[in-house]
Amino acid sequence: MIRESFTLKLSGHLFDSEDLLPKYVDLIRELWKNGYRMAIVTGGGSLARRYIELGRKININESLLDMLGISASRLNAQLLAAALSDIAYLPIPTNLDEVFRAWSTGRLVITGGFQPGQSTATVALLISEFLGIKRLIDCANIDAVYTNDPRVDSNARKLDKVSISELMAILRSRTVAGTYDLLDPWALSIAQRSGITIYVIGCGKLSSLRRLITEGTSDGTVITP
Amino acid sequence: MIRESFTLKLSGHLFDSEDLLPKYVDLIRELWKNGYRMAIVTGGGSLARRYIELGRKININESLLDMLGISASRLNAQLLAAALSDIAYLPIPTNLDEVFRAWSTGRLVITGGFQPGQSTATVALLISEFLGIKRLIDCANIDAVYTNDPRVDSNARKLDKVSISELMAILRSRTVAGTYDLLDPWALSIAQRSGITIYVIGCGKLSSLRRLITEGTSDGTVITP
Amino acid sequence: MIRESFTLKLSGHLFDSEDLLPKYVDLIRELWKNGYRMAIVTGGGSLARRYIELGRKININESLLDMLGISASRLNAQLLAAALSDIAYLPIPTNLDEVFRAWSTGRLVITGGFQPGQSTATVALLISEFLGIKRLIDCANIDAVYTNDPRVDSNARKLDKVSISELMAILRSRTVAGTYDLLDPWALSIAQRSGITIYVIGCGKLSSLRRLITEGTSDGTVITP
Amino acid sequence: MIRESFTLKLSGHLFDSEDLLPKYVDLIRELWKNGYRMAIVTGGGSLARRYIELGRKININESLLDMLGISASRLNAQLLAAALSDIAYLPIPTNLDEVFRAWSTGRLVITGGFQPGQSTATVALLISEFLGIKRLIDCANIDAVYTNDPRVDSNARKLDKVSISELMAILRSRTVAGTYDLLDPWALSIAQRSGITIYVIGCGKLSSLRRLITEGTSDGTVITP
Amino acid sequence: MIRESFTLKLSGHLFDSEDLLPKYVDLIRELWKNGYRMAIVTGGGSLARRYIELGRKININESLLDMLGISASRLNAQLLAAALSDIAYLPIPTNLDEVFRAWSTGRLVITGGFQPGQSTATVALLISEFLGIKRLIDCANIDAVYTNDPRVDSNARKLDKVSISELMAILRSRTVAGTYDLLDPWALSIAQRSGITIYVIGCGKLSSLRRLITEGTSDGTVITP
Amino acid sequence: MIRESFTLKLSGHLFDSEDLLPKYVDLIRELWKNGYRMAIVTGGGSLARRYIELGRKININESLLDMLGISASRLNAQLLAAALSDIAYLPIPTNLDEVFRAWSTGRLVITGGFQPGQSTATVALLISEFLGIKRLIDCANIDAVYTNDPRVDSNARKLDKVSISELMAILRSRTVAGTYDLLDPWALSIAQRSGITIYVIGCGKLSSLRRLITEGTSDGTVITP
Repeated sequence: MIRESFTLKLSGHLFDSEDLLPKYVDLIRELWKNGYRMAIVTGGGSLARRYIELGRKININESLLDMLGISASRLNAQLLAAALSDIAYLPIPTNLDEVFRAWSTGRLVITGGFQPGQSTATVALLISEFLGIKRLIDCANIDAVYTNDPRVDSNARKLDKVSISELMAILRSRTVAGTYDLLDPWALSIAQRSGITIYVIGCGKLSSLRRLITEGTSDGTVITP
Repeated sequence: MIRESFTLKLSGHLFDSEDLLPKYVDLIRELWKNGYRMAIVTGGGSLARRYIELGRKININESLLDMLGISASRLNAQLLAAALSDIAYLPIPTNLDEVFRAWSTGRLVITGGFQPGQSTATVALLISEFLGIKRLIDCANIDAVYTNDPRVDSNARKLDKVSISELMAILRSRTVAGTYDLLDPWALSIAQRSGITIYVIGCGKLSSLRRLITEGTSDGTVITP
Repeated sequence: MIRESFTLKLSGHLFDSEDLLPKYVDLIRELWKNGYRMAIVTGGGSLARRYIELGRKININESLLDMLGISASRLNAQLLAAALSDIAYLPIPTNLDEVFRAWSTGRLVITGGFQPGQSTATVALLISEFLGIKRLIDCANIDAVYTNDPRVDSNARKLDKVSISELMAILRSRTVAGTYDLLDPWALSIAQRSGITIYVIGCGKLSSLRRLITEGTSDGTVITP
Repeated sequence: MIRESFTLKLSGHLFDSEDLLPKYVDLIRELWKNGYRMAIVTGGGSLARRYIELGRKININESLLDMLGISASRLNAQLLAAALSDIAYLPIPTNLDEVFRAWSTGRLVITGGFQPGQSTATVALLISEFLGIKRLIDCANIDAVYTNDPRVDSNARKLDKVSISELMAILRSRTVAGTYDLLDPWALSIAQRSGITIYVIGCGKLSSLRRLITEGTSDGTVITP
Repeated sequence: MIRESFTLKLSGHLFDSEDLLPKYVDLIRELWKNGYRMAIVTGGGSLARRYIELGRKININESLLDMLGISASRLNAQLLAAALSDIAYLPIPTNLDEVFRAWSTGRLVITGGFQPGQSTATVALLISEFLGIKRLIDCANIDAVYTNDPRVDSNARKLDKVSISELMAILRSRTVAGTYDLLDPWALSIAQRSGITIYVIGCGKLSSLRRLITEGTSDGTVITP
Repeated sequence: MIRESFTLKLSGHLFDSEDLLPKYVDLIRELWKNGYRMAIVTGGGSLARRYIELGRKININESLLDMLGISASRLNAQLLAAALSDIAYLPIPTNLDEVFRAWSTGRLVITGGFQPGQSTATVALLISEFLGIKRLIDCANIDAVYTNDPRVDSNARKLDKVSISELMAILRSRTVAGTYDLLDPWALSIAQRSGITIYVIGCGKLSSLRRLITEGTSDGTVITP
């Protein structure tokens, strides 16, 4: 059971759902009031994709496209922090130094992305490592890690538990693209060097998150360092 | 004919149109290369409205809702600045001091909103006044100022030219809401005290802007101080 | 009776009085120690007027003149914060984001003005709204709101209680200038949209403030949203 | 004759004179347009003294009193920069790093004080040394350096030229207070280690400054490293 | 031949050599004066290693150890920028936004590292991509890229030219550690997506750099996107 | 006996000793946990000297050399703060305003130098004065203050207790250089005006510091205001 601090990565997908978002706001406040201390990282979701697409049409370079995606993820972070303004820190921190300043006030810290060429999963791991947090819960678009993309490969097998080195081997052998969003090698190498356990669960069911935190039961994938 | 520096307010509406946006990018670069010096303020458009609606559903207060709208307008500003990164300043300035720093480098300055309870038109006038610029071109959702909302009142008359004090009298006598977006009393009072002329044109036709700048001919409304 | 958080606007006039200022310092510290949580906004007073006058003689534009007034109000804020350095935050916050950071530390927050074309009363309302504070006490140069300027109009009647919409109607019908310093339409519209009650009292008698806070009795004007 | 860059320290006294100030504004602009590159440091003058006195009455500590004096000097710097906003940098730099950033834009840099326990003369020498400027013109309240305070000692002799080490010996032998404002040992030691010549002239006559710059003739004191 | 802007990564090794450093200072100034526009990224070298070792003994976590290494690389950047203070920007930029601000002034931009878990080679590529620069010259500890570590494997073969995808395949097949410092997969993926050519040369001979820039002849490895 | 807040100046020498440093880290954490509140200022030590020497060879000016020394002292501060990251504030504050912000969070504040031409002893006294702390413990390279440099003058006598004015008289009469590092006149004048007692002890023996704090017994020199 997770009782101490943890880092929570929320898929940008969440911000497209007017049903799910209010429930997450309530659950996060409830957990905070019950003594769980969290840093949250939000993805950019469909908003990021829309601005990157728009930007690509007007010939914006890759670095500045990524920055648009980062700003989109920060807008999601700001929406969440505003809804939790009784407990969350504002304005949204944009780098590790600002995360430390925000964390020092004892408030709930919520961020989006940090830098071009870097996933928000990596940001979540950098924050975990920096603050000495040993658990990252990744509420993803998909409900677990599979041996291959289940939408493409009907033989793909769900992994209940996998070590980082096993997962890295799987990633190297895969040929299907799109794994970037979930967990990239850079993110995994940080988890490994600092002994951080990653819990991948689906963001679609609130019960997965609640059960993982309050009972310690994962219905997704546990990635061990 | 406008030959010197001017401030350009671009309706957020523009960022919903994949057709218009690239054309504005090209025109702004062309004008810049031809020696026109500009500060640009972008609106938040449908993105701002979407996040404010979403925020209202999760009980965010008015001040923080406005801040979401401001961040949305800054995302639009960032998109435009990224497309013009050969001439524009980044990151997007968020207050008058940062505008001055950006302006001092000689680059094209693009901003979104500044503060809750304040329209982007007001921001455009504050920047004009601060930098000593005497002309604001307001590319609006509507093609001119009318005596009343033309979508509601079939007797509404388009104004070719109107003084600020006449316009303020009209605004006071109006009962139809929604005039906020165009020009509010605070914005007008700044224009008046600093002698700034406001040219309201529609953002839907690029030719209105081009003709106004290069020929000095307005097909919208000229508001004189 | 006011028991919870409130925002306090202090007329710049206070900083011209070597008698009153120390008493306010003592009262604010006493209230703080008794559990009242406050954000304070100070006016620029005679210092602001002097620098604006001086600036006008050397042809400074309206925007930069306002900024001199803002810096003057911040100097007053700094004087007060320095006298209360055991409980107050330093350096003086200059915008809403900095107010939030300062407020997060749990210290007494004191600011001056924020932006050209904006009264310190508006700043006080923006801060109230942003922090979710529902009461603003405006310690003004005058002891209450009147139907007209009592120094000019002998028929002017003191208002004990007035709604924001009634007050706006009165302001519109007035022709006498100088109401700017007390409460402008922008300030009132923020109070209205966020349900903030404004208590106008005179800053000349310390007892007015003390009685309002500890007993809830106003001898000035209560403006209800 | 001084033809290259120089640093100019302006006594806070200047900001008490509605006659002198506009003339200095004009002269500085004229010099700038004629190709002289300058960094200017302004004193706090009577404004600083007033706020320090007021602060002392409400028991503010020495460090925070000095900071009030620094803010006063910055308000003077802001007034001057606003009057020269066509050529000067804003907002007022508050430390050496910000001075470098401002200087890099090619604009006229104007600052007030930097730190408690430090004279604005020391600030002017720190800036000179940092930017590699070898001449400081100190427009002081007094027209030159004397062997003793001429208001007190009728035998005090005006010094036309003096070396820094001679001046330090004189300062050590003096018993009269109040030399702090002019040049302190810390300021002199910076001038010495970096080979900076200090020209002390009176700020009361504009002709002293003009002649020194355009003709190279000093009617005050030249302090050689 | 390289004639336009390029990014230069300087091995931290350089700052351990009192012979080489002054020569690089002179060459960089000479190139700048001849019209080459550069952004420079410096490594942390032996200083970084010393502080990381020291930190490891007092149980500092990986993230904070990396930050010590970053600060060390920034101290090297500051040393170089101070020696080139007539043309370089100060203070040292610490992220992409600050790089853009510095670059906008037209001065030589020098940085160290940015973020934990990120090589300075990656920083150099992020800056190249951000500023639209298509050439990175990597002055490394080793004179070229080899098929394996030549200090360990006597069969290691020097590569004159290699594509990024070929190099990635080689990196994946290698088992020898220590390739991190030269070029990691993240750095290469940025080069690939933005079409940046990397020239790896040894920092030990100044002639390699000079010839590469002025004649376009590489005696190291050219990595093509 | 010292029971309340104090400021601690740590000689840069400490960071050259892999034996002493871990012991200081442990002692500081132990004191903090026992309720002692501290601000710590670290010197630059041999690292500062090395970079200043290197810089002098490549013709860096005095101001920028000092800044390299300041950055070196900040790297030492960062090392210490990283080792104490459970209680210390990060990033390292670089001026008094940032010190106040850091202090407001209730965390241990650690800084290096602030400004060219200023010793870290002066920084420690500026911080003491600013925060209203009345005791500075100076853990120096030497175990006490002597009437003259004991390494040079065999008649030099150790001072157990000395007043600031007596010490200033001794400093003036000395001809031996190198006293700069210990205590300069500017540092002493701040101690005097704000009534701060300075305890000089040697950093070589941890017992000196422990005994001074927990028992109040000095085996160095007490300098009284």
